[in-house]
Amino acid sequence: MVVTIVGIGLIGGSLAITLKENGFAKKIIGVDINPDNIDKAYRRRLIDEDYSLEKAIPLSDIIIVSTPVNVMMDLIPKILDQVEHQAVMDVGSTKCKLLEKIKNHPNRKNFVPTHPMAGTEYSGPEAAIPNLFDHKCTVICDKENSSKEALEKVEQLYQSIPMDIVELDAHSHDIHTAYVSHISHISSFALALTVLAKEKDENRIFELASGGFGSTVRLAKSSPDMWVPIFKQNRDNVLDVLDEHINQLARFRSLLIKQDYEAFYQLIQESNEIKRIIK
Amino acid sequence: MVVTIVGIGLIGGSLAITLKENGFAKKIIGVDINPDNIDKAYRRRLIDEDYSLEKAIPLSDIIIVSTPVNVMMDLIPKILDQVEHQAVMDVGSTKCKLLEKIKNHPNRKNFVPTHPMAGTEYSGPEAAIPNLFDHKCTVICDKENSSKEALEKVEQLYQSIPMDIVELDAHSHDIHTAYVSHISHISSFALALTVLAKEKDENRIFELASGGFGSTVRLAKSSPDMWVPIFKQNRDNVLDVLDEHINQLARFRSLLIKQDYEAFYQLIQESNEIKRIIK
Repeated sequence: MVVTIVGIGLIGGSLAITLKENGFAKKIIGVDINPDNIDKAYRRRLIDEDYSLEKAIPLSDIIIVSTPVNVMMDLIPKILDQVEHQAVMDVGSTKCKLLEKIKNHPNRKNFVPTHPMAGTEYSGPEAAIPNLFDHKCTVICDKENSSKEALEKVEQLYQSIPMDIVELDAHSHDIHTAYVSHISHISSFALALTVLAKEKDENRIFELASGGFGSTVRLAKSSPDMWVPIFKQNRDNVLDVLDEHINQLARFRSLLIKQDYEAFYQLIQESNEIKRIIK
Repeated sequence: MVVTIVGIGLIGGSLAITLKENGFAKKIIGVDINPDNIDKAYRRRLIDEDYSLEKAIPLSDIIIVSTPVNVMMDLIPKILDQVEHQAVMDVGSTKCKLLEKIKNHPNRKNFVPTHPMAGTEYSGPEAAIPNLFDHKCTVICDKENSSKEALEKVEQLYQSIPMDIVELDAHSHDIHTAYVSHISHISSFALALTVLAKEKDENRIFELASGGFGSTVRLAKSSPDMWVPIFKQNRDNVLDVLDEHINQLARFRSLLIKQDYEAFYQLIQESNEIKRIIK
């Protein structure tokens, strides 16, 4: 297959490594409006060739759109205007707004909305790593609106990695990702700001911060260019989860104020239930 | 040296592995009120012998107290009642309450308050792992109140691992750990409860939860037996940081409500500053 990747960053670049390595892609074409990214992608050997979007589309069997989700809103309709036999898939973290926008596009069936659940806090082609997706889970949304041919290509792509495919409607997807991904990022951003606001002596943080702090605050390194559009598109779900999270923190706060350590103990025990779910 | 470890859990057990491996300890004596822990410690080969506290003290050169911090409050005065040439050190996450309690003990100078900044979310002798402390940082508090002999033994112990030693007064220690450790735990507990409260379909969380969620919620597996006493002893500092953290989350919330994505972007950019500090 000839695979075109539009947006050669962490996700696009990591897919490029894997799909070339496992033989799914005979050729990887890179498309990126940032010439720096194309340059880095060549030097990292992520891509075989690069073209403008218009030139790349007819040369492709499958087109992966891995730009920030706000860019997809204009880009995917434009790609669908041009496709013939090509399958188009995105890898974005939100689905409802995009699918609403393209729902009446005559080539909607060429499009398969997907979301591979993997990433790191880094971005750009230099952040691309092998094996990022191995045996992780990917979501395919609203399957019934894609053609059999497009679905087959996309499923083959994910099976080649291999990733486990979960089917969800777009609405459920956006709710679940608010819980299992988007809130973790806001929590990390806020935790970083908390510590930065209070700890003026930064060397001290650096010296004392151990693994626990590092892992809860890791996501605070994530790029606002990628994340602000996600929060914007998934605003209502994120607000709902954020309210719940602030309420939970307020419960801990209230029990500390009242010095009710028995209830505090029970609250921690309840939260330990996450063990059953996250290994 | 003969090293006695009182409380053979994650921290005591991991120290046991390291100090035996690097030759600092000729013999490791285990003391634990829970016979199950002693049994497991033998089977994990963490200890050479086990005795009651009373019998172990005179046989030791150095005594490491690695129990929950509430247990230390009674245990350390009792140990100090009995010591002669022995050095005694704790590895607890809070310092002020304990040091206040023993400040007039005639053998206070035998005691060195320390806090190795390393751990995992697991507990018990079965959680002990090699290399947990390598090249991490450890705190020694209020050095001026320990004897030269006791300090020398404790410093040799940490240098043998090796760990970097940072000196702090107890008050500063308790403030800094509230920031770089205690708040991360409350944030994780609350995040786990948030998701557990809302996501009834647990298989879905399990399938979709990717690395980001796993790392922010990892600490929510931590034991309440260890953590409630820490929050209790460091209550005022933890409350102060928790208030700040809730305020920071409320800033994100307010900007989402107002749909002020420009300010939201700036807030994320500010939080990205943590990159300079946490590699």
